[in-house]
Amino acid sequence: MAADGNSLLEDKAGDKAEDKAADKAADKAADKAADNAEDKAADKAEDKAADKVADKAADKAYVDYSCVAFTDLLASKAPVPGGGGASSLVGAVGIALGSMVGSLTIGKKKYAGVQDDIVALMAEAESLRSDLLTLVGRDAEVFEPLAKAYKLPGDTEEQRAIKDSVMEDALVAACLVPLEIMEKCCRAIEVTAGFADKGSALAISDAGAAAVLCRAALEGASLNVFINTKAMKDRERAASFNKKAESMLEKYVPMAEDIFARVRVKVG
Amino acid sequence: MAADGNSLLEDKAGDKAEDKAADKAADKAADKAADNAEDKAADKAEDKAADKVADKAADKAYVDYSCVAFTDLLASKAPVPGGGGASSLVGAVGIALGSMVGSLTIGKKKYAGVQDDIVALMAEAESLRSDLLTLVGRDAEVFEPLAKAYKLPGDTEEQRAIKDSVMEDALVAACLVPLEIMEKCCRAIEVTAGFADKGSALAISDAGAAAVLCRAALEGASLNVFINTKAMKDRERAASFNKKAESMLEKYVPMAEDIFARVRVKVG
Repeated sequence: MAADGNSLLEDKAGDKAEDKAADKAADKAADKAADNAEDKAADKAEDKAADKVADKAADKAYVDYSCVAFTDLLASKAPVPGGGGASSLVGAVGIALGSMVGSLTIGKKKYAGVQDDIVALMAEAESLRSDLLTLVGRDAEVFEPLAKAYKLPGDTEEQRAIKDSVMEDALVAACLVPLEIMEKCCRAIEVTAGFADKGSALAISDAGAAAVLCRAALEGASLNVFINTKAMKDRERAASFNKKAESMLEKYVPMAEDIFARVRVKVG
Repeated sequence: MAADGNSLLEDKAGDKAEDKAADKAADKAADKAADNAEDKAADKAEDKAADKVADKAADKAYVDYSCVAFTDLLASKAPVPGGGGASSLVGAVGIALGSMVGSLTIGKKKYAGVQDDIVALMAEAESLRSDLLTLVGRDAEVFEPLAKAYKLPGDTEEQRAIKDSVMEDALVAACLVPLEIMEKCCRAIEVTAGFADKGSALAISDAGAAAVLCRAALEGASLNVFINTKAMKDRERAASFNKKAESMLEKYVPMAEDIFARVRVKVG
């Protein structure tokens, strides 16, 4: 019985200790869980706050807005995005249609002979699309300093001299971005010509649409060059920018028109 | 010592039991935590799946995708969105630029005399933008039955008769939507002419960009009419659709060109 007594004692003590230990462990686990939950909630809140800060800091790219929201912004009296950014987006939409023609052509037996050409065209189209989407934001970036420069005081001669210099720099930047958009659109039109010639006949109407959209983007962006060169003091530079823009229009508008006309004949 | 012996025993037993209980409790807590984590993961996966299902069920409108995501979809081999939807989106972007000219004009003393006209133009521009954004989705909707009709069997005479009839209906629907996109773009060009004439001189380049974008949307959508009428059996109806599309191009492409030319003179 001694042994029994001992084991009884042991059992009782064990039960008590077990209960106590279980309570402790459960408490600890609960505390830990609560801590974890708190940490997680705090982390989430922090992440959310950081996201918002990042959005504002990085000025959430306009092209990351939904298509509807982008047109809302465009329609508002906010000065950006404006004609330049809208044109760049349309250029991206246009060349994306070019890529679609490529996507519908590769891997098809009928077009095995032009597969390598199509792959090369698609690589360039995708790179142009990425550039044009980036230029939507860049166009907005160069507008801000220009808007600020217009508001600088011009009461004294010194103020006017400063304003002129700041304005001129801002105008140059606000010309260079649409000129770059135009260059990308020119190349997009050339690439689209390739898709129209070599791509799947089933997607020929998409190649034609790509051409007219890229052409419109080219023309739309050109107006931002012309409106900004008009205000420039350095008339030589203004003339040089205008000439660049005009020569792109002269060469690539007819090229896009030609693609559209050829597609119309094929589909009509 | 008996007491000591007992307490020693108790202590030992207690320690053992405590260890055991702690292990058990820890195991339980760990199991619970694991269960919770699993549940959470399962919930997340379920939510994600539900989101996808909801997206599909509600057919998350293409225009609710980000601009980048829309161009991704466009560039893929997915047949929709295609040239028609892209054109409709570009028309919406174009007329949004028109609205922007209006937004920058109303409330300005200098333009008080045309305030009522601008307000009326803006109301129509906003309605056109909404219609064109809706037509992006409608263009995709009418493509699906057409794609299905093309795949119908045509082995027996009966099958061919059914296929022809289903095809014809699908082709008609796939013509009516781009014709509607074109009509909206024509009206958008007229409204843009109003903005170019009466809107703030500061936003004149945006009016010009609006014109070229709406014109491209008009031309892009026309190709979807022509490619679908080409396949129609009812040649009288095909001719009537083609005539409609052609007469819109004949009248409104020059109108848009004229706006662009006038704006170029003003900004250049």
